Amino acid sequence: MFELKLEKESLFLRVLEAILDLVDVASVDFFSTGLRLQAVDTEHVAVISLFFRAEEFPHYSCEENSSFCIPIDDMVKAIRTADVDHNITIKVDDENFDTITLSFESPEGNITTAYDLRLVEGERPCFKIPVWKDLESNYEAFVEMPSVEFMRVCRYLSNVDDDGEISVTEEGLKFFALGKSGRAMIKYEKTEKATVKLQMQESVSVTFDPKYMNCFAKVSTMFSQVKICLSKTQPLMVECKTALKSYIRCFVTPKAIPEIEEEEIIQGHSSERTRKTKD
Amino acid sequence: MFELKLEKESLFLRVLEAILDLVDVASVDFFSTGLRLQAVDTEHVAVISLFFRAEEFPHYSCEENSSFCIPIDDMVKAIRTADVDHNITIKVDDENFDTITLSFESPEGNITTAYDLRLVEGERPCFKIPVWKDLESNYEAFVEMPSVEFMRVCRYLSNVDDDGEISVTEEGLKFFALGKSGRAMIKYEKTEKATVKLQMQESVSVTFDPKYMNCFAKVSTMFSQVKICLSKTQPLMVECKTALKSYIRCFVTPKAIPEIEEEEIIQGHSSERTRKTKD
Amino acid sequence: MFELKLEKESLFLRVLEAILDLVDVASVDFFSTGLRLQAVDTEHVAVISLFFRAEEFPHYSCEENSSFCIPIDDMVKAIRTADVDHNITIKVDDENFDTITLSFESPEGNITTAYDLRLVEGERPCFKIPVWKDLESNYEAFVEMPSVEFMRVCRYLSNVDDDGEISVTEEGLKFFALGKSGRAMIKYEKTEKATVKLQMQESVSVTFDPKYMNCFAKVSTMFSQVKICLSKTQPLMVECKTALKSYIRCFVTPKAIPEIEEEEIIQGHSSERTRKTKD
Repeated sequence: MFELKLEKESLFLRVLEAILDLVDVASVDFFSTGLRLQAVDTEHVAVISLFFRAEEFPHYSCEENSSFCIPIDDMVKAIRTADVDHNITIKVDDENFDTITLSFESPEGNITTAYDLRLVEGERPCFKIPVWKDLESNYEAFVEMPSVEFMRVCRYLSNVDDDGEISVTEEGLKFFALGKSGRAMIKYEKTEKATVKLQMQESVSVTFDPKYMNCFAKVSTMFSQVKICLSKTQPLMVECKTALKSYIRCFVTPKAIPEIEEEEIIQGHSSERTRKTKD
Repeated sequence: MFELKLEKESLFLRVLEAILDLVDVASVDFFSTGLRLQAVDTEHVAVISLFFRAEEFPHYSCEENSSFCIPIDDMVKAIRTADVDHNITIKVDDENFDTITLSFESPEGNITTAYDLRLVEGERPCFKIPVWKDLESNYEAFVEMPSVEFMRVCRYLSNVDDDGEISVTEEGLKFFALGKSGRAMIKYEKTEKATVKLQMQESVSVTFDPKYMNCFAKVSTMFSQVKICLSKTQPLMVECKTALKSYIRCFVTPKAIPEIEEEEIIQGHSSERTRKTKD
Repeated sequence: MFELKLEKESLFLRVLEAILDLVDVASVDFFSTGLRLQAVDTEHVAVISLFFRAEEFPHYSCEENSSFCIPIDDMVKAIRTADVDHNITIKVDDENFDTITLSFESPEGNITTAYDLRLVEGERPCFKIPVWKDLESNYEAFVEMPSVEFMRVCRYLSNVDDDGEISVTEEGLKFFALGKSGRAMIKYEKTEKATVKLQMQESVSVTFDPKYMNCFAKVSTMFSQVKICLSKTQPLMVECKTALKSYIRCFVTPKAIPEIEEEEIIQGHSSERTRKTKD
């Protein structure tokens, strides 16, 4: 059906490892040009969408398009046991349609290790993630920053982690988080020679849950640059790209500002936070 | 109101980090000459008292004496997120009387991070810790040892951790701990060239809970020497000093030997350990 | 009664540390020629049997044969607190028959640390582990491999950890594990120059619980080679030896293949796994 080879320290595996914090099962589509992985976190707030071109792998073959639901947590755990110099092969055979096989081969070739992992049964989740051309036109502001800088921001915000906000205005870029212990604010002034590049049609401010940023930060460490796309109507998007234009996009639904109803105020309770999916 | 600057790797911050095991909120008094921090652990057995002179900080200004109750756990957590080369400023403004602001500035100056942490409300705890002249006259024996040696002792005692005892006699210094699994004993003979210096008016033996020693050991790693003061009537005191005579003093109330009442023995229960505060 | 000296980084202590995962109390017999330690895990599936010759220790003296039940977990914890350059003495006195004393001496000799640990009371467990000549004749197949290779196998199997199987056949050596997430298989082809040596009278296949292999793998890291002995009637044995012919042998009872009764199948339950001790 399909077969790909890769190294233990490959970007693809490190990205899978990073997204395990949010998702453990992913829907994967294999095309002749590459593979697409999509996954949604258990709280249905974050969506991971990844496309890796065939050229990213030392070997990639896919005779016919196929789709599987893969337990990426089991897969990553199994691959962790491989030696660094092992050649790792991942494949699904026509005969064993319900199993994904990982095999490790020692450079000498006389020792073989194989894991047969059960594919996840049932309806694979379906995401309607629009292609990029569509996406770009829907976003009003774009931030590009070194991933080192993005990680620093996530580290700051993680400390005060109840409500997060990113805003891009004429003055520059601002991150803000509010928590029980206080609030955090990081400001980047718009300067010519700044490493943080801003592009905007109009001022945008997007709320989000800071906890998702930590996973995105982890993913971003594997890339040099991060692109953040902000829109008043679309989920916040964080995108990283390889030199070969493979990409991973992390979407997070904005946090709805809780609408406190009168009755609740009277009772002295704050309303439970609700989320609105804007799609 | 007051403002001080410091570096991430400063002694002051490392001391705060070390005492977090015991306390999360501290009462802090700002004077023009320096700051005093006092805190008591939740079990009311250990008291931390610290005085850091203004000269210990790259910048320190305090226009009028002021006192706050500071969430040092939140403060330390926030400062942990700072970069090593950041300039850290801590201040309370006259306008925002209920907030302590931490701000980090990158060396280039175009990125600013600020945390506004809520000060702890309510009556600040009041400790009547006598000044040093008073203290010294109340103690009967003094031990000075390299903090490396003190840490070693704490490591030994932590292993058998029910009841601790320090005693200073003509023969030398003895640490002793008794636990379920057995007992531990460390003896330092009194020799001329020993790194452990003893000074005594009379033999003193003080009981303590070994778990507090671990926190004191952590604090002591930031200093080269530790002074232990023993008294039959005062809480055990462990003191460390800087070259500028700033100090941190850790007091721990002696463990009272449980007085087992007859009734309890009959019921087959051992009495709950009680503590007597000797003040 | 007996006294031995050893260094903190000695093989003996590192082996004790490794077996702590399985056992916390051990029956130890002191002979003039060396000491024998035997322990069984709480589930009564694994047995550790160790014999260390007197020559392995810098000092070893045993005037008359004696047997104790030693809390090796407390002993290892206490020894962990010793400094690397300390001389460690372990002894049981004729006077303190219920206590094992560990003492650490600094090279200068002016600081002494001593732990008195309570020996475990009660009947000491009795194992009838036959001596080696007996054992060898009862096993049908033998595998010798570098411990590095054995650890790799254990790492693979630990990932899919419900049911393990080792088999030695004419084709070579095969490890197999089956779990909820799938199955793992490692094959070593029988080649002339392989680092894995096989010796067999007939094909043998032994089931085991992979979780025990991790502890054995830990033990094996202290040795260069591992010998695995397989039999249709004896517990699986993993043996490591020192240059002086001291040894540690780990036995694990084969996992019985669950006999699913009809009634249980009807009720939709799988029977609880049972173990049969073959002795």
